[in-house]
Amino acid sequence: MKIAVDAMGGDFAPEAIVEGVLMAAAELPENVAVVLIGKQSIIQELVQKHSTYSAANIELVNADDVIEMSEHPTKALSQKPNSSIGVGFKLLKEGKVQAFCSAGNTGAMHVGALFSIKAIEGVLRPCIAGFVPQITGGYAVMLDIGANADCKPEMLAQFGEIGSIYAQSTFNIAKPRVALMNIGTEDQKGSLVAQAAHQLLKENNRINFIGNIEGGDFFAGHTDVIITDGFTGNAMFKLGESFYRMAAQRGISDEFLDKTNYESVGGSPILGVNGNVIIAHGISSPLAIKNMIGLAIRQVESDAYTKIAQALG
Amino acid sequence: MKIAVDAMGGDFAPEAIVEGVLMAAAELPENVAVVLIGKQSIIQELVQKHSTYSAANIELVNADDVIEMSEHPTKALSQKPNSSIGVGFKLLKEGKVQAFCSAGNTGAMHVGALFSIKAIEGVLRPCIAGFVPQITGGYAVMLDIGANADCKPEMLAQFGEIGSIYAQSTFNIAKPRVALMNIGTEDQKGSLVAQAAHQLLKENNRINFIGNIEGGDFFAGHTDVIITDGFTGNAMFKLGESFYRMAAQRGISDEFLDKTNYESVGGSPILGVNGNVIIAHGISSPLAIKNMIGLAIRQVESDAYTKIAQALG
Repeated sequence: MKIAVDAMGGDFAPEAIVEGVLMAAAELPENVAVVLIGKQSIIQELVQKHSTYSAANIELVNADDVIEMSEHPTKALSQKPNSSIGVGFKLLKEGKVQAFCSAGNTGAMHVGALFSIKAIEGVLRPCIAGFVPQITGGYAVMLDIGANADCKPEMLAQFGEIGSIYAQSTFNIAKPRVALMNIGTEDQKGSLVAQAAHQLLKENNRINFIGNIEGGDFFAGHTDVIITDGFTGNAMFKLGESFYRMAAQRGISDEFLDKTNYESVGGSPILGVNGNVIIAHGISSPLAIKNMIGLAIRQVESDAYTKIAQALG
Repeated sequence: MKIAVDAMGGDFAPEAIVEGVLMAAAELPENVAVVLIGKQSIIQELVQKHSTYSAANIELVNADDVIEMSEHPTKALSQKPNSSIGVGFKLLKEGKVQAFCSAGNTGAMHVGALFSIKAIEGVLRPCIAGFVPQITGGYAVMLDIGANADCKPEMLAQFGEIGSIYAQSTFNIAKPRVALMNIGTEDQKGSLVAQAAHQLLKENNRINFIGNIEGGDFFAGHTDVIITDGFTGNAMFKLGESFYRMAAQRGISDEFLDKTNYESVGGSPILGVNGNVIIAHGISSPLAIKNMIGLAIRQVESDAYTKIAQALG
């Protein structure tokens, strides 16, 4: 199994990325290698700098260009086929790597996925999934956390199915509980979109829909999958992450609060596309990159995207 | 000044309400009295039970009926004019009290306000405001937190003006910073509604619009007023409140996290109506009720609703 990582993407790239990859490499299973994509000379120098790590299971692939954080995704991708993101998607599409991860330009990652490996047939809109730690243990999968600011009821209903299959295959939950984020627990509550989505989710007997949850249930352990539009999802997810920062600022150290730190999972998969694509936080630290690689491995092993394609195709 | 409180509304009513009112009464300014509305015999008994408190500045007004939490707001209000909520709005409309507060049926409070004192002319849709503690001190006013699940850009833009006047008059902030909750800081980010609202807020030179904030800025002290639709606002506000509960569950005690407890403010005003109406949490404790009365006094003194009417009328 080969996991490709964009060495050039992120606020602290390439240093933080290379260091994270080296940290991960030290613990990789034998059948896994990491493919580091970026300017070879720079990366090589960084790898040598951290010579205490072994780089045996790391392969370098050169990419001369870099798509900057502020660049227009579609334009940048077509103008810079030799960027680290461009090369990453080329390798993924050709099956030379089984996953591609980057802490770089999120828009370019999203557009790159849609243009190269493409959306799964039958998927209305790919989305981004986030992992929300639950006070009862484990994580709930929340989708969408930002790809689709405006959602139709049918999209939300499909997120339910995608999230359920993902939780089942990646988290080994036999019958994942699926809940709709809403502003009341009763069926008729919420925005027009939420009301209609609730009805569609309820009618879908392929998922275990448990009804609405509210903002206060975010961390409560009531569900395995949280369905929401990309606007609400993004706002809530970022608020949830801020809990860790705030606790740190207040000098509070707590095992659960630590899990609300973005570093603890390290990345968010794009779901509904024909392959494993993981987006990491722009501010990604070496630890975040290491954990992101762990997530990528788990996702490749679970073969979630094939299962999603089989169910929705 | 007279503050009317519904003695019968809330999960722990009338006990918790009466006790909260007695707690507040012990510290009331001389010119303030609380009017307790509910079944006189029950309330009198409860007041006597807590005989350590003085009830000198408490008046009792009888109301034979109660609107239950689960009742249909409009139906219940028309069928039960003698309910504590019905009587409260009658007193408010007649100017016999300067504010009406209840921890009872939120829908009935909202509908009651619209039917009795009515929306301010020029206000597109009254909304509910929540107070979000800021890590830098004080609170930001967030609106809407649940009255309007579906919002048009014009409504959001108006929330900006209402929130600004409220923060100015009630919190004494000369030039309140107004921000739009969004999923990116750039102007063009977000849902179609958020994008259009951003433009309208930007064009309004009566407010100090500072642009978009993100979920991670919720507690960060970047703004005095947070504008959002009632769906996102409700979900985020409840998530924010859950920080306290979770911290308590984890055995964490912290001065700032304590402020995320709903009890610390105790109530949420309905803004955009011709009077002071405050809704409290269904689970309100005596402390929450006490603090809600404090908020009501502050609001009456600030005369925010008249100022909103002058600006928008």
